[in-house]
Amino acid sequence: MKKTLIDLNSDMGEGFGPWTIGDGVDAQLMPLISSANIATGFHAGDPNIMRRMVGLAREHGVAIGAHPGFRDLVGFGRRHIVAPADELVNDMVYQLGALREFARLEGLQLQHIKPHGALYMHAARDEALSRALVTALQRIEPTLKLFCMEASLTFQVARDMGQPVVRELYADRDYDLSGAIVFTRRVGALDPDAVAAKVLRACTEGVVRTVEGKDVAIGFDSVCIHSDTPGALALVQTTRRVLAAHGIQIAGLAETA
Amino acid sequence: MKKTLIDLNSDMGEGFGPWTIGDGVDAQLMPLISSANIATGFHAGDPNIMRRMVGLAREHGVAIGAHPGFRDLVGFGRRHIVAPADELVNDMVYQLGALREFARLEGLQLQHIKPHGALYMHAARDEALSRALVTALQRIEPTLKLFCMEASLTFQVARDMGQPVVRELYADRDYDLSGAIVFTRRVGALDPDAVAAKVLRACTEGVVRTVEGKDVAIGFDSVCIHSDTPGALALVQTTRRVLAAHGIQIAGLAETA
Amino acid sequence: MKKTLIDLNSDMGEGFGPWTIGDGVDAQLMPLISSANIATGFHAGDPNIMRRMVGLAREHGVAIGAHPGFRDLVGFGRRHIVAPADELVNDMVYQLGALREFARLEGLQLQHIKPHGALYMHAARDEALSRALVTALQRIEPTLKLFCMEASLTFQVARDMGQPVVRELYADRDYDLSGAIVFTRRVGALDPDAVAAKVLRACTEGVVRTVEGKDVAIGFDSVCIHSDTPGALALVQTTRRVLAAHGIQIAGLAETA
Amino acid sequence: MKKTLIDLNSDMGEGFGPWTIGDGVDAQLMPLISSANIATGFHAGDPNIMRRMVGLAREHGVAIGAHPGFRDLVGFGRRHIVAPADELVNDMVYQLGALREFARLEGLQLQHIKPHGALYMHAARDEALSRALVTALQRIEPTLKLFCMEASLTFQVARDMGQPVVRELYADRDYDLSGAIVFTRRVGALDPDAVAAKVLRACTEGVVRTVEGKDVAIGFDSVCIHSDTPGALALVQTTRRVLAAHGIQIAGLAETA
Repeated sequence: MKKTLIDLNSDMGEGFGPWTIGDGVDAQLMPLISSANIATGFHAGDPNIMRRMVGLAREHGVAIGAHPGFRDLVGFGRRHIVAPADELVNDMVYQLGALREFARLEGLQLQHIKPHGALYMHAARDEALSRALVTALQRIEPTLKLFCMEASLTFQVARDMGQPVVRELYADRDYDLSGAIVFTRRVGALDPDAVAAKVLRACTEGVVRTVEGKDVAIGFDSVCIHSDTPGALALVQTTRRVLAAHGIQIAGLAETA
Repeated sequence: MKKTLIDLNSDMGEGFGPWTIGDGVDAQLMPLISSANIATGFHAGDPNIMRRMVGLAREHGVAIGAHPGFRDLVGFGRRHIVAPADELVNDMVYQLGALREFARLEGLQLQHIKPHGALYMHAARDEALSRALVTALQRIEPTLKLFCMEASLTFQVARDMGQPVVRELYADRDYDLSGAIVFTRRVGALDPDAVAAKVLRACTEGVVRTVEGKDVAIGFDSVCIHSDTPGALALVQTTRRVLAAHGIQIAGLAETA
Repeated sequence: MKKTLIDLNSDMGEGFGPWTIGDGVDAQLMPLISSANIATGFHAGDPNIMRRMVGLAREHGVAIGAHPGFRDLVGFGRRHIVAPADELVNDMVYQLGALREFARLEGLQLQHIKPHGALYMHAARDEALSRALVTALQRIEPTLKLFCMEASLTFQVARDMGQPVVRELYADRDYDLSGAIVFTRRVGALDPDAVAAKVLRACTEGVVRTVEGKDVAIGFDSVCIHSDTPGALALVQTTRRVLAAHGIQIAGLAETA
Repeated sequence: MKKTLIDLNSDMGEGFGPWTIGDGVDAQLMPLISSANIATGFHAGDPNIMRRMVGLAREHGVAIGAHPGFRDLVGFGRRHIVAPADELVNDMVYQLGALREFARLEGLQLQHIKPHGALYMHAARDEALSRALVTALQRIEPTLKLFCMEASLTFQVARDMGQPVVRELYADRDYDLSGAIVFTRRVGALDPDAVAAKVLRACTEGVVRTVEGKDVAIGFDSVCIHSDTPGALALVQTTRRVLAAHGIQIAGLAETA
C-alpha cells in the first residue's frame, strides 16, 4: 500500500492587486507542485493574477483547479458567512467559470475545484452545501475532480453522487482523532523536517500523529502545502527531497490516480 | 434595404444583492427581447441574479451575452477607470467566464459579449483596448459576437480581425452627426411614441435625427433599449407594437443576420 | 404610563451607488420621523448618499445616528459573518466616524448608533460583542445613545456600563413571547391599519400580540419602521395619523426621554 | 535657510486584511518618523489595521493624518477614476472621519490629511477638486493641515483659502524641472545613500537634481519616504543618520513649522 507517486497541491495566486500573502513565492513553488489551486477573486486573487498563474501553470505543466472562497477579501475567506447553500454554490459557479475562461484563453483544461478556507470547512460539515455543490458539478462537468478531506461530508456526498474526489493530506495542519484537521495556535514556523517526516509516514504507513498524541489512519490522493504558510518554499523543497530519498515521486493525478 | 426582422437587446440583471435599478422590470422585459446582455458582477449583477437571468432567458428562448463593466459598483461602471488595456481585458475575460459557467449549468451557449457603460465607450474610442479585447476573443471563441456601435474603433478592429460584430442602434440615447451616441441631460422620461418612431425610421430609412437636427445614416443589426431607462417596459412594448404595425418583427440574430 | 410623545426612527440612505431599496422613499419619509439611522457604507449607503441624508435630516430637524452593518453589500448586512468581537467593533467605529464627519460638515451632532440587521441581532445575543461595543462607546462618547431591543444583551450591558440606551418597538416585525423579534415569511405587504393599531396598543397598554397569539409586555422609547419595508411610507403616515387621533405625537428623544 | 529640524512622513497601514505591501515594515518605521499618513480603507487599510496604526502612533508620539484614496483596492488607488469633484470629496470626508474616530478612541487628534496616489496627483492638477476639498476642510476643520507638493494647484488653492499646508519633498520619487514628481520605470531598488544625499542637499541647498539633469528649487516642510518602496526601512534609517551627521534632526511639525 506504500505510495510511490503522489500529487502535491498548493494554493496559488492568493494575492490581491498589489498585495502578496505569506512569502510571495508562487513563482518558485509552481515548478515544484503538480496541482495548483488558483484563487478566483472572492477571498483572494484578481483577474491579472489569475491569468499570470494560469500562464505559469501551463509553462510548468501543472494541472489547475479553481479555488473559490467566501466573498470576503478582508477576512481572506476564513470567516464563515451564514448563507443558503444554493447562494454559496452560485458564488462557486461564478468563480469556477472565471478561472475556466483564463484556462480557455491559455489552452488549458480545468482539472479540479477546491473550496477555500471557511467554505471548505463549512462544506465538510454541511451536507446541504456539499450536496448542492456536487449537484451543480454533475450538471456542469461530472468529471471535474473535487478536492476534499476523507473525513468530510463533501467526500461522502461526492462519492455517493459519482463526482470524482481527490482526498487531501494537509502537510501543514494538525489532525485530531476524527481524521479532520484542527486549528491550533502555533508558536513560530513549522519545522520542514517534521513536516516532511509526517508526509513520508502518511505515504508509507497511511497514518498521521494527532494532537491527542495517537495515530489516525488517513486516506489521501494528494498532499497539500499552503503557499501562505510561512516558510512554504522550504516545506515543499524538504518534503520533495525526503520523499524522493525514500523512492516517492511527485506526479500529477493523471499518473497517480 | 428595409428591415423586416430585427434583434432587440436589453441589459438584464443590473441589480446587486437586494437592490434593483430602474423600474426593476427584468422579468417582464425578458419575454419581449431577443438578446439579453447579462451583467456580470463588476458594475452590477451578482451570482444569484446571473443564475436567475440565465434561467429566465432559457425559459423565453432569449439569446444571452456577457455584459462586463469596469470594477466599480458604486459608480455602476459609468466612471472611466484609467488602466492598461490588457488589465481591462483580463477583467472582461473573468466576467465572460463567470456568465459562461451559468450558461453551462443551464445548458445554454453564449451568443455575445457587450462591454458596459464607460468600458463600452472607452473601447469605442481606444484602439488598443478594442484590439486587446478582440485578440483575446479570437483565442477564446472566434465566433462569439461582439456588440458595438458602427461608429466605433471596436467595430473597425473586430471587422478587420474577423470577430463577428453586431452593430447597435440605441433607441433611448441621442446621436450626433458622427453617428456616435452622446450624453444629454434629459428633462423627464422618454416618450415611448417618439422612441418607437425613431426605431421605425431607422429600420425603414436607415437614418436617425441627431442632436444637431440633421439626419445621419446608421447601420445596425440590433436595437438596444436599456432596462434601467425609466419607463423601459413601455418603451419596449410601444416599439414592438409600432414595428409590428409596419411589418417588422423582433427576431433573434440567428434569423436576422 | 400611556405615552403622549414618542420617537419614530427609520433606516435612511440604504441605497448604494445608483441603486435604491424598497420604495426609495427616503426623501418623503425624512419629514415624518424624528430619528434617522443613516447607513454607513458596509451593508448599504455610500458617501454621496450619506451626505444627502445628513443634509435632509438637518433640513427637517431630524436627529441622526450611525447605522453600521457587517461588511457585506451583496447580503445587505443580513448574513451573519463569524468574526471576533473586537474586529466587529472596529468595523463599527470606522463607520461611526464616517457618518460623524458628514455631521461635522453639516454642523450636526450624532444622537445615536444602531447596528444593522444581522449585526444588531448578533449583538443582542452575544454579550462579548455588546460589551466590546459599549466599551468602545464609553471611550469615544459616553453620551451617545445606543438603540437596541429591551429583550437583548445589548440593553443589559449598556445599562450596566452606563451607556444611554433607547429601546425600540419594531412596528413592522413580529414578536415572540420572549419579547424579541422573529423572522416570519410574509405573504404580501403589511396592512397599515394593523401596524398602526399595534403601535397604538404598545403606546397605550405597553404590550404587543406575539406570533404565539398571546400578549407580551414591551418597554420602548422609540418606534422603528424600516424604510425598506414595502409600503413604508403608508405605514408611517397611517401610524402617525392613528397615534395623533389618540393624542400621541411624534417627537424627538430630546423631548420624550 | 538651512533646515536643522525637518518632519518625516510615511504612509502607514497600507495592507488590507491579511495582506501586506512592500516589506511590511510599518512597526519598525513608526518610531523613526514624525508624521504618519494612515490609509483609510478605500485604496488600502482596514479598520483593524487603522486601529493598530493609531495605537502605534500614540505609543511613539507620532502625529497622524488621514490618507484617503480612490475607491479602488485592486488598483491600490493608483488608477485615476474619472468622477465629479464633489463626489471625490465625499469619499475623502468619509475616510477622514473613519480615521478621526479611531483617533478619538485612542485619545489623539488628527494633524493632517494627505490624499493618496492618483487622487493626490489628480488634486495637484485639478483646481476644481482642490477647491472642493479645501472648501470642505474649511467647514470641517480649518486648522487641519493639508499635505501637498509646492508645485501643485492644491498648494495654491489651500494657501489662497487659508487652509494650512505642508509641502512635501519626495525622497523616493524623481522630479522634473517643473518641481513636480514624475513616474519613471526603475531598474532595481533605490540606493539609500543616494536618497539620503538628495534629502540632505534639499535641506541644505533647497534644490533637487531633476530627471533632466538640472537643479530645481524645492520648498518643503516635510520629507516623505513611502513605506511600500522596496527597502523603505533602510532608506529611512540611512536618511536619518546622514541628516543627523549634518546637524539635522527629525522633528514633528509642531516644532518645525
